[in-house]
Amino acid sequence: MKLWDKGLTIDQKIEQFTVGNDREVDLYIAKYDVQASLAHAKMLYEVNILSRKELTMLETGLKKLAIQIKEGTFVIEPMFEDVHSKIEFELTKEFGEVGKKIHTARSRNDQVLVALQLYYKESLLEIKKEVNILFNTLLLIAEKYKNNLIPGYTHLQVAMPSSIGLWVSAYAELLIDDVSMLNAAIKIIDQNPLGSAAGYGSSFPIDRNFTTRCLQFETLKYNVIAAQLSRGKNERFITGVLGGICNTLSRFAMDICLYNSQNFNFISFPEELTTGSSIMPHKKNPDVFELIRGKCNKIQALQTEILLVTNNLPSGYHRDFQLLKENMILAVAEVKSILTIFTYAIQQMIIKEVDLNEEKYQHLFTVDSINNLVMEGMPFREAYQKIGKEVKNNTYEPNTNKKHTHIGSVHNLCLDKIKIKMKGVL
Amino acid sequence: MKLWDKGLTIDQKIEQFTVGNDREVDLYIAKYDVQASLAHAKMLYEVNILSRKELTMLETGLKKLAIQIKEGTFVIEPMFEDVHSKIEFELTKEFGEVGKKIHTARSRNDQVLVALQLYYKESLLEIKKEVNILFNTLLLIAEKYKNNLIPGYTHLQVAMPSSIGLWVSAYAELLIDDVSMLNAAIKIIDQNPLGSAAGYGSSFPIDRNFTTRCLQFETLKYNVIAAQLSRGKNERFITGVLGGICNTLSRFAMDICLYNSQNFNFISFPEELTTGSSIMPHKKNPDVFELIRGKCNKIQALQTEILLVTNNLPSGYHRDFQLLKENMILAVAEVKSILTIFTYAIQQMIIKEVDLNEEKYQHLFTVDSINNLVMEGMPFREAYQKIGKEVKNNTYEPNTNKKHTHIGSVHNLCLDKIKIKMKGVL
Amino acid sequence: MKLWDKGLTIDQKIEQFTVGNDREVDLYIAKYDVQASLAHAKMLYEVNILSRKELTMLETGLKKLAIQIKEGTFVIEPMFEDVHSKIEFELTKEFGEVGKKIHTARSRNDQVLVALQLYYKESLLEIKKEVNILFNTLLLIAEKYKNNLIPGYTHLQVAMPSSIGLWVSAYAELLIDDVSMLNAAIKIIDQNPLGSAAGYGSSFPIDRNFTTRCLQFETLKYNVIAAQLSRGKNERFITGVLGGICNTLSRFAMDICLYNSQNFNFISFPEELTTGSSIMPHKKNPDVFELIRGKCNKIQALQTEILLVTNNLPSGYHRDFQLLKENMILAVAEVKSILTIFTYAIQQMIIKEVDLNEEKYQHLFTVDSINNLVMEGMPFREAYQKIGKEVKNNTYEPNTNKKHTHIGSVHNLCLDKIKIKMKGVL
Amino acid sequence: MKLWDKGLTIDQKIEQFTVGNDREVDLYIAKYDVQASLAHAKMLYEVNILSRKELTMLETGLKKLAIQIKEGTFVIEPMFEDVHSKIEFELTKEFGEVGKKIHTARSRNDQVLVALQLYYKESLLEIKKEVNILFNTLLLIAEKYKNNLIPGYTHLQVAMPSSIGLWVSAYAELLIDDVSMLNAAIKIIDQNPLGSAAGYGSSFPIDRNFTTRCLQFETLKYNVIAAQLSRGKNERFITGVLGGICNTLSRFAMDICLYNSQNFNFISFPEELTTGSSIMPHKKNPDVFELIRGKCNKIQALQTEILLVTNNLPSGYHRDFQLLKENMILAVAEVKSILTIFTYAIQQMIIKEVDLNEEKYQHLFTVDSINNLVMEGMPFREAYQKIGKEVKNNTYEPNTNKKHTHIGSVHNLCLDKIKIKMKGVL
Repeated sequence: MKLWDKGLTIDQKIEQFTVGNDREVDLYIAKYDVQASLAHAKMLYEVNILSRKELTMLETGLKKLAIQIKEGTFVIEPMFEDVHSKIEFELTKEFGEVGKKIHTARSRNDQVLVALQLYYKESLLEIKKEVNILFNTLLLIAEKYKNNLIPGYTHLQVAMPSSIGLWVSAYAELLIDDVSMLNAAIKIIDQNPLGSAAGYGSSFPIDRNFTTRCLQFETLKYNVIAAQLSRGKNERFITGVLGGICNTLSRFAMDICLYNSQNFNFISFPEELTTGSSIMPHKKNPDVFELIRGKCNKIQALQTEILLVTNNLPSGYHRDFQLLKENMILAVAEVKSILTIFTYAIQQMIIKEVDLNEEKYQHLFTVDSINNLVMEGMPFREAYQKIGKEVKNNTYEPNTNKKHTHIGSVHNLCLDKIKIKMKGVL
Repeated sequence: MKLWDKGLTIDQKIEQFTVGNDREVDLYIAKYDVQASLAHAKMLYEVNILSRKELTMLETGLKKLAIQIKEGTFVIEPMFEDVHSKIEFELTKEFGEVGKKIHTARSRNDQVLVALQLYYKESLLEIKKEVNILFNTLLLIAEKYKNNLIPGYTHLQVAMPSSIGLWVSAYAELLIDDVSMLNAAIKIIDQNPLGSAAGYGSSFPIDRNFTTRCLQFETLKYNVIAAQLSRGKNERFITGVLGGICNTLSRFAMDICLYNSQNFNFISFPEELTTGSSIMPHKKNPDVFELIRGKCNKIQALQTEILLVTNNLPSGYHRDFQLLKENMILAVAEVKSILTIFTYAIQQMIIKEVDLNEEKYQHLFTVDSINNLVMEGMPFREAYQKIGKEVKNNTYEPNTNKKHTHIGSVHNLCLDKIKIKMKGVL
Repeated sequence: MKLWDKGLTIDQKIEQFTVGNDREVDLYIAKYDVQASLAHAKMLYEVNILSRKELTMLETGLKKLAIQIKEGTFVIEPMFEDVHSKIEFELTKEFGEVGKKIHTARSRNDQVLVALQLYYKESLLEIKKEVNILFNTLLLIAEKYKNNLIPGYTHLQVAMPSSIGLWVSAYAELLIDDVSMLNAAIKIIDQNPLGSAAGYGSSFPIDRNFTTRCLQFETLKYNVIAAQLSRGKNERFITGVLGGICNTLSRFAMDICLYNSQNFNFISFPEELTTGSSIMPHKKNPDVFELIRGKCNKIQALQTEILLVTNNLPSGYHRDFQLLKENMILAVAEVKSILTIFTYAIQQMIIKEVDLNEEKYQHLFTVDSINNLVMEGMPFREAYQKIGKEVKNNTYEPNTNKKHTHIGSVHNLCLDKIKIKMKGVL
Repeated sequence: MKLWDKGLTIDQKIEQFTVGNDREVDLYIAKYDVQASLAHAKMLYEVNILSRKELTMLETGLKKLAIQIKEGTFVIEPMFEDVHSKIEFELTKEFGEVGKKIHTARSRNDQVLVALQLYYKESLLEIKKEVNILFNTLLLIAEKYKNNLIPGYTHLQVAMPSSIGLWVSAYAELLIDDVSMLNAAIKIIDQNPLGSAAGYGSSFPIDRNFTTRCLQFETLKYNVIAAQLSRGKNERFITGVLGGICNTLSRFAMDICLYNSQNFNFISFPEELTTGSSIMPHKKNPDVFELIRGKCNKIQALQTEILLVTNNLPSGYHRDFQLLKENMILAVAEVKSILTIFTYAIQQMIIKEVDLNEEKYQHLFTVDSINNLVMEGMPFREAYQKIGKEVKNNTYEPNTNKKHTHIGSVHNLCLDKIKIKMKGVL
């Protein structure tokens, strides 16, 4: 976002229009472009396009850049349109002709594609770890508060007894499904696209199996057009998967904001996690979870953007694809920060005592009462009528002693089973 | 869609508003409600809520209904609001009190949830088969036309040589990724929700492991709130996965419509697959592939609908969820028909001879020319300049003999490798 | 939706795939195709392509069909692919050659385009009326309950005093904005597309001004390509506008469902507007407003579908556009029924007494307390600190007598002003 | 986007998570916060909450800030969370107690709301001007190339004759509709929300009519809850309207990219508007129009983001709304730059001669041939059959002399009429 752009010439405006934020965004993938360039150089040596000496020079140069990137001293100056031209420039500045040779048998598209996939793969694996940390955190909270009963709602109406433990571990179990999808996306990303060049391959006798091993991809995208078409399609898969995690967290955050309302009053947060008002001195707003909800919802919207940009485009690269990069990278970073903040903030949650004998919760145990009658031999529909009548006549008296014992119910959370299920997908 | 609704009373309007198309749509899940009811009844017997005799009666009744459903004679009359009340009515009509007992320890939500999941699971497995049939069809076409060269495009500009074989097998390879996601969704659906009742479980000592085995679910969704929350979330996963398949087919269909244009003229279709115009007697429009494209695009939009309906709702069932059912079931049916039609229609595709010596394709081989120079020892950037100059001065003469030999390139499609990769995910 | 489609030949499947639900959906636009055909015939007479006698015959035939349509006896048999071929068939059956002449100087696209626009225009005008009825209903409710105080919330936290009147009339005022957008969409639809033929006009000397007047369009879409391009674009506008109304109603319905919860208990509904549970005898669920919310959310999603189908398609008609028709027509009908049901149901809403002296609402008046101090001369920030301290020390005592008198505040709703504003856009 | 965030404490992470890019984004609305603060201060003086002297001090301070903002020297330092706290700080630093008084009878929400609306209003008016400039540019191009015939397509198949003039002016006419919607959105934005405070008004006797006049709003949003609810809803309207403009431009850009392909070759661009390839020396890619297309498609996706964030939230402010600001402001800036670049680039378009006698265009005139026969007396369906037969037997000979004379057709573009229509909405 460049604010003060008055006085630009039309050429500068077009320059700004076409380059956009690429220089900033490319810092995220610089590391991976270096990795892929290294693999590509080694392969060129293997197939006799580079000499041993040339390879050594390129390795030296690329490793130097890798260190700069790691240390945060790597900069893409305004004279470069992206990270790829910057890196080629540095290599050429240092090694002359040899630096120029690294672009043999590959194209810019190729580079972006492979660097992005390496970046996505590492990022998704990190996100998986973070999801698991949150999952374990939730199970600990669920175990701790498994006896803290709260009302359960359907249609926002008081329905049947629930508990903090049941509620919190529900979201934990949902995260397992999100990890299953994450695994599928990682599998898809884990296919080497390098060698597709501009999308139609190369007439050089390149060895794509070599770079696949070298970059530790599980397999390769064989067909070069398929490699190119996976641009946009990979982004669709990834946004779907990130959206899945965010869907779970967004709904959880909605519950949290609701239960934190004075009208529910099941939970609260310490002052450092709430925000005051500029006019109301009593306010302790749950801004952190509202922002989690909102940010998760934005990420859920990203797939529509990806689709609208890429949909109905004929095959072959189009410049439009370049526009996907920025929001993808921002979304990946955002999901990581959401997971970190969620894991931290949920541990600060204060669980309040809820009095289920309050008048508004008086019908919470009607189903238990019916079931008692049924277990004593009354047919279900008859028991239902009997209790219904009592409710209507205001003579119903709840029996709150009933235990729910079956798998996954209030008094039998099966947290160990849920943990084993998660292990199966990690 | 009820057209002539004038003259309805407000009660009838509300009835129509709340029931909607449920009766029609529920025919799709009737089979699965019977399956789940059978499993539930057996379990009730196992835990001593039903007697052996009662179970036998219910089994008889349910199997009778199963036959009606299979033979297409099962009807949900207007007096029933959905398939579940219809089935309970039939059982009660035949067996009196016993029929009413089947609803012990379960709720309507429970029934819808488990029936939908059984339906989704079977449907996704069928779709997977259909995708594989299309995949194999595409590989056969690719093999047959692997030597039919066509221009490859980037930015819709003539770029480098491609072929019908390369183009068609690219989409085949993409389908493998779609199947990977499909597998993840099936894994997620394959968890028994039965026993969650209204979303907070039951005080009856039900045996959820029993129904899980009985219904051949791989595992169960332990937490009852998680089972309830998976409503909407499952639909999100499934629409994501169906959308993935449709994304591949939609972009393929776009290519087909474009290549079928007189301005490309790479392919055509026999008259029975084209449509004429009411005013232009020469028209042979590729309506089938346009409809595939459009229908695929509609299905890609379905996830946004699911999200807008379910997003930001607190946990617990809300009636809104009932609205997801209709379009989900329509989409599943639509995807099946798209796959069938695509597989049939693509086999009718007529491949035309493309003359790559036409003037408009004259620069198709510049990269090959550069690479020849590089292989003879000239540095890449110098060769690029030299050929670039020739292009500019109109002295460039294409050398069309160059072969692309590396993995996945025009002359080395690796169809067997792609086939093995697909086998790995089937 | 055809359920039992087993055993179809591939030709039948393709037929079903291409025709879809057109016959059912076309009943909605039959009336308008007749209108437009009548205008077209008159124009052909005016420019001497039809004789007086031929025109009379066509008029007779079309008016007969108009009556059938009005009376609900008009049927599109399976032998016709749409309403247009049905109508041409009927005219030809009755008048031979003359019936065939009506298609002179127009195309199928043309017909669909003009019939849809006439349908949209009439529908949007009807919807506008319905919105106004709801608006007036809401103002009456607001007036009636203007002194029923309830807490106002920000962040779902108790914030400052509000009232039923303030809350209900807020949504009324928002509807005015929705009508402003509705007006813009009507203006856009109110441009005659007839005469664009297949999107490139006709070599006949047709008089488009004549049909414009005849069909009471405000103006015409001059450029014939623009007329064709407005297909999809009109649908985008209309879904945007319907989505706007639904956005207002969906958020209103969310409030209603929340305030109806036992934890808020501000409102309730008589039994006939609530739904019970199959297992919980005490439940009175607000299904009607949940369905309103859900249906409104589905309609808000429709624009994404329109966009995904049409986006990135080159200009000129594509068969994909035919797929927009069904969901558009369903959405228009749905919005009408939502408005009817909302208007009816909101009048049944029971307003409960809310005791603002309950402990959970104790801080509702802190801002009023601060303002009192400010009015007495204390600087705002100091007063804020003072009351904040009292809240912290639990010594705060609310003063509930303060009146809010400024325009649009709790005790000065300005319903008359809001009414005048609505009048300005009707 | 903060890249190197390693080593942050959890407090810093939360700080970063909650503040986001607000400081950068707020520079765009700083000007409007000053305007609104000025109006608010004057009003406080009018109702005797500020003295004449206090007002003068605040005016001095605010005008100083206004100058800094205009000159680009205004900075929001990291110690401030947003522009509003920065401005209050500056006023307090300079005028002590008086600076603190400006927040009397308003809240932060209020400030954001009114500043955003002032910003939106000015931005939309600017965008309207830019649309009109593009519109006029397109009409000039259309007039210049009205005799340059090109084929018209339906289904991407050669259909009937068109022209550059017809094609270009079609998009001009569509822009009129986009302006109609723009007007409706401006009307909606043009309602003063100031005075709604935290969404429930104030107990101070503020004069909202005064600020309405002072800020030159056409009217005010009376109901304070309505004012608050318009947050999110305004953004929905605006994204709808910006999306409309972008929809037109995106589809136009698609045509341009297609017609620029060697397979169409209707147009081209000078080298400075095209981009080369890193491996193909012959490439002149239309990146500018691809980026226009892609950026327009991203903006079309923004409404889904707005909806997903705000949908199903109960009334009253939630922190989630704060997240809408950034992408709205970026989108407004992007639309402006798209319009500027489009207007410039389209003027550089080079129109090529298209030979309609080429074999692939041989059936372009069949409808004209039919119409000739009809005008000579043959019934339409018979003429259709006759020409159809000729096409089939390859005996068809096009007659290219036919002129299309009716309103809006190839040889009668009605550019003056279209211009008058635009004037009606400016």
